[in-house]
Amino acid sequence: MITLRSWLKDGWHEGTADFVTLVNPATEAPVARTSTTGLDLRGAVEYARETGGPALRAMTFAERGDLLKRMSKVLFEVRDALIDASIASGGTTRGDAKFDIDGATGTLAYYAALGQKLGTVRALLDGPGEQLTRSPRFFGYHVKTPRQGVAVHVNAFNFPAWGLAEKAAVALLAGVPVISKPATATALLAYRVMERLVEAANLPPGALQLVCGNAGDLLSYLGPQDVLAFTGGSQTGARMRGLEGVVSRSVRVNIEADSLNAAVLGPDAEPGGDTYQMFVRDVAREMTQKAGQKCTATRRIFVPQELVDGVQEALVEQLSRVKIGDPALDEVRMGPLATAQQLRDAREGLTRLQAAGARIVFGSATDVQPLGVPAGKGFFLAPVLLRADRPHDAAAVHALEVFGPVATLMPYADTADAIRLVARGEGSLVTTLYTDDRAVMEAMVLQLAPYSGRVFCGSAKIAEQATSPGAVLPSCVHGGPGRAGGGEELGGERGLDFYLQRTALQGDRALLDRVLGINASEA
Amino acid sequence: MITLRSWLKDGWHEGTADFVTLVNPATEAPVARTSTTGLDLRGAVEYARETGGPALRAMTFAERGDLLKRMSKVLFEVRDALIDASIASGGTTRGDAKFDIDGATGTLAYYAALGQKLGTVRALLDGPGEQLTRSPRFFGYHVKTPRQGVAVHVNAFNFPAWGLAEKAAVALLAGVPVISKPATATALLAYRVMERLVEAANLPPGALQLVCGNAGDLLSYLGPQDVLAFTGGSQTGARMRGLEGVVSRSVRVNIEADSLNAAVLGPDAEPGGDTYQMFVRDVAREMTQKAGQKCTATRRIFVPQELVDGVQEALVEQLSRVKIGDPALDEVRMGPLATAQQLRDAREGLTRLQAAGARIVFGSATDVQPLGVPAGKGFFLAPVLLRADRPHDAAAVHALEVFGPVATLMPYADTADAIRLVARGEGSLVTTLYTDDRAVMEAMVLQLAPYSGRVFCGSAKIAEQATSPGAVLPSCVHGGPGRAGGGEELGGERGLDFYLQRTALQGDRALLDRVLGINASEA
Repeated sequence: MITLRSWLKDGWHEGTADFVTLVNPATEAPVARTSTTGLDLRGAVEYARETGGPALRAMTFAERGDLLKRMSKVLFEVRDALIDASIASGGTTRGDAKFDIDGATGTLAYYAALGQKLGTVRALLDGPGEQLTRSPRFFGYHVKTPRQGVAVHVNAFNFPAWGLAEKAAVALLAGVPVISKPATATALLAYRVMERLVEAANLPPGALQLVCGNAGDLLSYLGPQDVLAFTGGSQTGARMRGLEGVVSRSVRVNIEADSLNAAVLGPDAEPGGDTYQMFVRDVAREMTQKAGQKCTATRRIFVPQELVDGVQEALVEQLSRVKIGDPALDEVRMGPLATAQQLRDAREGLTRLQAAGARIVFGSATDVQPLGVPAGKGFFLAPVLLRADRPHDAAAVHALEVFGPVATLMPYADTADAIRLVARGEGSLVTTLYTDDRAVMEAMVLQLAPYSGRVFCGSAKIAEQATSPGAVLPSCVHGGPGRAGGGEELGGERGLDFYLQRTALQGDRALLDRVLGINASEA
Repeated sequence: MITLRSWLKDGWHEGTADFVTLVNPATEAPVARTSTTGLDLRGAVEYARETGGPALRAMTFAERGDLLKRMSKVLFEVRDALIDASIASGGTTRGDAKFDIDGATGTLAYYAALGQKLGTVRALLDGPGEQLTRSPRFFGYHVKTPRQGVAVHVNAFNFPAWGLAEKAAVALLAGVPVISKPATATALLAYRVMERLVEAANLPPGALQLVCGNAGDLLSYLGPQDVLAFTGGSQTGARMRGLEGVVSRSVRVNIEADSLNAAVLGPDAEPGGDTYQMFVRDVAREMTQKAGQKCTATRRIFVPQELVDGVQEALVEQLSRVKIGDPALDEVRMGPLATAQQLRDAREGLTRLQAAGARIVFGSATDVQPLGVPAGKGFFLAPVLLRADRPHDAAAVHALEVFGPVATLMPYADTADAIRLVARGEGSLVTTLYTDDRAVMEAMVLQLAPYSGRVFCGSAKIAEQATSPGAVLPSCVHGGPGRAGGGEELGGERGLDFYLQRTALQGDRALLDRVLGINASEA
């Protein structure tokens, strides 16, 4: 069993006490231990601000893009080892592991290319300049410059590689140094990622630090130029957002939290048709990929009243084929939940959904026979499909995210009813609508948008070409209003804004043009 | 003495008890009373969401622009009456009153024109669409739609007209209904503004409501689609941002709070030159306009070491000419502070600045002889110039906003030192730099930007054409990082984003193009 270390102030540091043991969630065999007791987290914050920030800001966007390209490349070179680490420590199947690790290298590569596109500048112009008064000389621009602080990233247990990389890619490209804190339970993979980056990516000093274990007093050091990005549960997110120092120093906070993502089958769906099949396939995949431990997984399934029984049958058929067990086995398609606590929470959540009027129509909160696992071991939960025939009365179904292979099937009356039901989730990361009917699209897409960070429209002509609804693409914003945390990550260049200060510049146009490197003939 | 009413659910409502008396701050004569006791604020929130929101969202941006145009026009028609109300209730000179009221009508007119420009649409595209995978059919857009909630605006006492109008203009154009709560002490002017709008602007039902007096339990009703914008002191701002419901429901919050705005005279300044004179004139104006009760007023004056004595002399000369007294008198150039509490706070603040190493070189915390005011009446404070010769040791000078005609003059060693000193303010609304030297601009402008919502560059060639640094233009963002609250208002179309949800749309390009009204030949 190895001891994970933290990468702080350009050195590896081991905690001194209070070690936590990480286990393989399929077998419960110990895989690593970690601790942050005794580590100088205040020093790490200062090192980021005083060493990492200046180093990154001295680079152009293109140079920072080169850094991301190196990071992507050196991680890709050890892809197989990272996949093994994911399977052993995260309970992921090989497919799940690739989803995480290829997501990491892909997002780094995407932002590397964006850096090239932004070019050899250190500040970004925001829109064209404009004359501010009647005088053509007195002119205004908006410019975006890197915040002079540190970005603290607190990541969720479900994507140790992608979570670290997607947040770091955006912050580093913006010119802001990062302290990344993976969730402890699955930190082994994040640690392997960091080991490789330290070894081979030629990171600028202080640009990226890793805290493996408890965050300790890290957040208490955040100040007015710093930012905090969190992915995880709503309660923890709310606690962070409400921290006295965060509130009083206007620390910028981005939160990505609970999300009762809905999939809506349009009223025009024809059983057996391509769109219908796409819907069934996507829902079953979203329920079971990573054992449903994805913030973008479908939790609520809305289907026209008359199609509910047929959809239930089709989903049950798909779900019953999913082989559960030790993800190290090739034939296994779904592994365990990540921790014993996650399993307890999911089971308790199932009880609450049932109390709210949903009944289990497939699977069980307790019965499961995982393949290749010693009897009684592992944090396994079989896929569970619930059904709530009176969805407006089933409050918990719209409010409680059961973070496992669990979703609830519900009928809706008409498109207006479907919109109202989606809205009951109070803000989601992704809403999925399956239809080939332009009128349905027009009645629903822009009405679903205010409640959704992303609306994915499935239809026959893209059934074979689309990504899965749960896939988070670097080019599209990721986040959602309300319950989903109210945040926004990625989205190409949009994601940089969280790390940049936008400033209006006013003055003599000729002087400003020179400072900004604007050629008067272009402007 | 009139009783102010609140405009809620399309009717005027009077509180039932606990009336607060508003006084003329120059004479302490009562001018109005108000109360919100017994008012149905929960009902107002629901009315905004259920009636105001749908009414506004049914309109296009152009139609909402028409609404703002009417609002601007009908307020301009009663400009003289509004100026009188401002002078009588706000302690403002005629010039101060115009600054507020013309700011209101001007900002409404600016956003009216933006509405025309955005045209007959109800959602905004955010950037061009893009292909998401190798298939040209699977395409992505980002779209911005109005949040389906209410915007609660809590305004400061210093700009009762502009504060109401600038926030309302942006929210209403975005399609989000408003409940505006002016500061009680100066609410008479906001009440007059609202009276006129109700009478003549043909407001859509529920689009704009006014709470005159204590906010009561208003903020406790905010939910995941709502937004809260606050202008005022840091402590109140932090309290609002940290409210349990605001935190747990991801209510979007924009705060504009304390700001230790700096004015920097460049090292190239020549005493008596145009830029130097512009600097002296601007600083004196920023100190005394509205008796220094502006969030953008200059609080810290940084001058090259060798020029400090000369600048002090020039500022003292300007300040000594300012006639203080009842602003109803034509010859008066500076009125009182707005309330007895403001005067107490400013005096206490002066004591703290002195304790921190600043000494008063002009004016006094207590001595003042206002013109045309009964002896001992009114909340007057004479302009006070302080000087701190060891600015790095004078912590309070960089942290404590004394909200009156008060600023501190300090020397700096070189441009790097000036940047460090500006940064000590931990985030400001506006930083002003006076220089004609391109090298100074290059060394400073982008380095000051991360600490500033706006950088105003004064120079000889625009000395006669520029607005004053304290003027907030609707085309430029207004807000600042850190201590200034971390918010952003205005900035033309940028200001709308606070009220809109940005959503990624993914799907079949042909279907999405039709829903978004995109002509394929354009795209």
